[in-house]
Amino acid sequence: MLKQDTVVPDFTHSDARIRELLSRVHEIADLGALGALAEWDQNTSMPGGAGEVRGDQMATLQGVLHEHWTAPTMGQLLEELSKTVVEQTSFTDADRGLVREAHRAYDRATKLPRKLVEEMARVQAASFEAWRRARENNDFLHFAPWLKRTVALQREIADRLGYKETRYDALLDQYEPGMTANKLDQLFAPVREISLTMLRRIQESGHTVDASCLSGKFPLEEQVVLSKRLLRGMGYDFSFGGIAESPHPFTTSFGSPFDVRLTIHPDKHFIQAAVMAAIHEGGHALYEQGSAQTLARTLVAGGASMGAHESQSRLWENPIGRSLPYWQGQYAAVLETFPEQFANVDISTFVRALNKVQPSLIRIEADEVTYNLHILIRFELEKALINGDVAIESLPGLWNAKYREYLGVEPPNDAQGVLQDVHWSSGFGYFPTYTLGNLYAAQIFNALHRAFPNFDQQLASGDTSFILNWLREKMYSFGAIYQPEELMRRVTGEPPNPEYFVRYLTHKFEAVYDLPRTAN
Amino acid sequence: MLKQDTVVPDFTHSDARIRELLSRVHEIADLGALGALAEWDQNTSMPGGAGEVRGDQMATLQGVLHEHWTAPTMGQLLEELSKTVVEQTSFTDADRGLVREAHRAYDRATKLPRKLVEEMARVQAASFEAWRRARENNDFLHFAPWLKRTVALQREIADRLGYKETRYDALLDQYEPGMTANKLDQLFAPVREISLTMLRRIQESGHTVDASCLSGKFPLEEQVVLSKRLLRGMGYDFSFGGIAESPHPFTTSFGSPFDVRLTIHPDKHFIQAAVMAAIHEGGHALYEQGSAQTLARTLVAGGASMGAHESQSRLWENPIGRSLPYWQGQYAAVLETFPEQFANVDISTFVRALNKVQPSLIRIEADEVTYNLHILIRFELEKALINGDVAIESLPGLWNAKYREYLGVEPPNDAQGVLQDVHWSSGFGYFPTYTLGNLYAAQIFNALHRAFPNFDQQLASGDTSFILNWLREKMYSFGAIYQPEELMRRVTGEPPNPEYFVRYLTHKFEAVYDLPRTAN
Repeated sequence: MLKQDTVVPDFTHSDARIRELLSRVHEIADLGALGALAEWDQNTSMPGGAGEVRGDQMATLQGVLHEHWTAPTMGQLLEELSKTVVEQTSFTDADRGLVREAHRAYDRATKLPRKLVEEMARVQAASFEAWRRARENNDFLHFAPWLKRTVALQREIADRLGYKETRYDALLDQYEPGMTANKLDQLFAPVREISLTMLRRIQESGHTVDASCLSGKFPLEEQVVLSKRLLRGMGYDFSFGGIAESPHPFTTSFGSPFDVRLTIHPDKHFIQAAVMAAIHEGGHALYEQGSAQTLARTLVAGGASMGAHESQSRLWENPIGRSLPYWQGQYAAVLETFPEQFANVDISTFVRALNKVQPSLIRIEADEVTYNLHILIRFELEKALINGDVAIESLPGLWNAKYREYLGVEPPNDAQGVLQDVHWSSGFGYFPTYTLGNLYAAQIFNALHRAFPNFDQQLASGDTSFILNWLREKMYSFGAIYQPEELMRRVTGEPPNPEYFVRYLTHKFEAVYDLPRTAN
Repeated sequence: MLKQDTVVPDFTHSDARIRELLSRVHEIADLGALGALAEWDQNTSMPGGAGEVRGDQMATLQGVLHEHWTAPTMGQLLEELSKTVVEQTSFTDADRGLVREAHRAYDRATKLPRKLVEEMARVQAASFEAWRRARENNDFLHFAPWLKRTVALQREIADRLGYKETRYDALLDQYEPGMTANKLDQLFAPVREISLTMLRRIQESGHTVDASCLSGKFPLEEQVVLSKRLLRGMGYDFSFGGIAESPHPFTTSFGSPFDVRLTIHPDKHFIQAAVMAAIHEGGHALYEQGSAQTLARTLVAGGASMGAHESQSRLWENPIGRSLPYWQGQYAAVLETFPEQFANVDISTFVRALNKVQPSLIRIEADEVTYNLHILIRFELEKALINGDVAIESLPGLWNAKYREYLGVEPPNDAQGVLQDVHWSSGFGYFPTYTLGNLYAAQIFNALHRAFPNFDQQLASGDTSFILNWLREKMYSFGAIYQPEELMRRVTGEPPNPEYFVRYLTHKFEAVYDLPRTAN
């Protein structure tokens, strides 16, 4: 059904050094895939009592991978290839991407002593447990010493990895290659402004959205059936994937497009949780399944960055998955799965409900207008922590002040405030990629509209394959061959530009909330 | 609830060489656990399209393990330890077991060239596929060339591993350390005779058993609920385990007693499949969960041999799980889960149904009287194949002739004949351990009865913990520290003796089929 890629990226197998690197990278990717499987298992099936032995298994695997990366012959090979593949036109972009990513991993492995990596892993495990209990008991002080330790280790890691402008850049670069805090400040300024503006306009309008149709009784098995149906509709291929349940939805791949699985976490009283998680994770999964098969078992299969990855989950979830045309094509599945619950709900009521705006305390429940404000709060606090500008003890107060300022709400306790996210138990530099994903998504959505003048009509007919085919051809098939900024140029014709998000958000929510149209 | 082990085996951590070996073995066990996880996943969750990349991952892991074993420093360490631990009384049985098992693995790794192991792995994968299709299409000739290749490779492996008496011994020793074909011939002769005798006596009596209560409508989810309840009743600990579904039930552990999982394959029309598989796999799982925690992440956690393992699945499944006293204690669970289906079925009807004897074509459906005849047929054919006494092409005919002779039935096609089992797609020497398991089980069951004069009454009260506690103390906690023959001496007071099975089978089926009691 899907169109074949017109240009399939591939490596220069005729070159002996590329072959040698591929052979090493295949082994590393295979071992990494077993690690990914261990994490998948831990989140979906592993018995609770096996946590400690699983930690031992992961530590051993990390050690073996570290040995593979730091072998002196690996350094020589990469040194030689780094010069050659850039200079010679006989090499492909896939070669260049492979050598670049291998060099990044080699650098990281050689710059960070094994002891430091092991300590970080141990602190992460203990910190996660401390965070879990702290949130359960609404007790920030139980988490504080571990957070302090994590900040110290992250600073050491940043200093060892190195950076040009600010220490935070070293952490950010792990998730979003080439991105810096200064660039983010520029990209995020218009996001901050439009989010606050739209929120104010909606609140001042007095208009409201009734989302009550999304609450009710929704048997869990049927939610899984509906989720699978929507995923199949998007083009997710179950012969190379699978769906499971876990406390927090996520997607994972195992080093190739041949095995990409996702989870959902259905809520029996709230249909939106499972359905929108399925579409969101489905976006991640389509990206992974879309890597050219030639890239399997290498470092350049899969997404170009965390921001690029989030752009695809967000693109499918929001601009597409929360649009009227999408549901015009898919609503029949909802009605057939839950005929009684939606007997008196028409499509536009359903879609408006999915787009209700409501400032809230919890990031993962936030709408499109307020979501990025949650991220900006975290980004600002992360920078301050890493720069050493704030004491851990003052964090809950700062958090609450920012929620008052940005969202006009105040957490009644730390469990619903500074303790809500798991992320800071493992490190820093990740949160901003969520907002980057939203920016990339809006920009790619605009490019899609330019490519398909009848986009809405095609989507409303129930067809999404034209979108997937285009994304595969322009983006997915290339995996991580290109870094995010270049990838955005290739897919959309320009580097990341927040204006697309500003326009998207403005037009969309002017329509949803029936606000007066602005000039733009 | 469970009694603490009175004697906990442990290693001599004060010895630097033991510590060094443990550190190496921990790494190897951790990597092995990831391999076990990959196999578990392949059987329970992996998407069909991921078979090839999973094969790559396993091959890479095998290579890494091979490197670990064949490191020259490993050989020196084992050489030194092998002399020391046997001679010096300051070492423990756990040390001796660990060094012995490490030496076995080292020998195997150094005797079998990596190329041969890799070729065997490739042939196994292809042979499995060929077998699957051959069975599907009832086409033995499609499988024959792969079987020929497997026989040749197994002969080469046996010759490289070495043996004293017959080539078959080298293969057998992989699964049942210390066992030989000659010993098996002696152990199996009385099994052959009693099986044929009992089958003839039952058939000549004209007595029949009505097993119709086991067939009907049994919703799958409720079968899982019942299976879990029976497993909990046996003492299987779900905080260190889990249950899943797979085409063929199996149990697996991941290098420690902290994570031992099993599968069942419920049949919606036949309750016996899930229930007896749960108890059978539960026996395997209790053995694995019972290893002393001190043995975790070593080669001596888990079962002593395949026969020892099968003895525990069979012990729980047959002498215990198909007995009237067991169901007197557990039948309430059946009635509560399936009140309508068993409304008019009393316990003794249910238990008699579980013990119906019927010569059949299919091993895995066989009753206790005929089961070992299926194994003897395979054992005889395996020996002939490995000795080169038969041509592959004549195998189906030989198979059918033996079924006529031993069981009085004739396969209508090869799918229900020589192609029914997966085993020969991966190698030889495994089948006899099934019958060994039955012999060991009967002997251990006898020892249990001697230890607990009121065995039946205790069991009928619904308590099985006294059995599990005894087995843990005598057998499970020692993992693979002792080889099977010594283990049997320690658990039962004598080496393997088939007379216990002969008596068990005679008395049990004289009762089930209301036959005249024999003198013994």
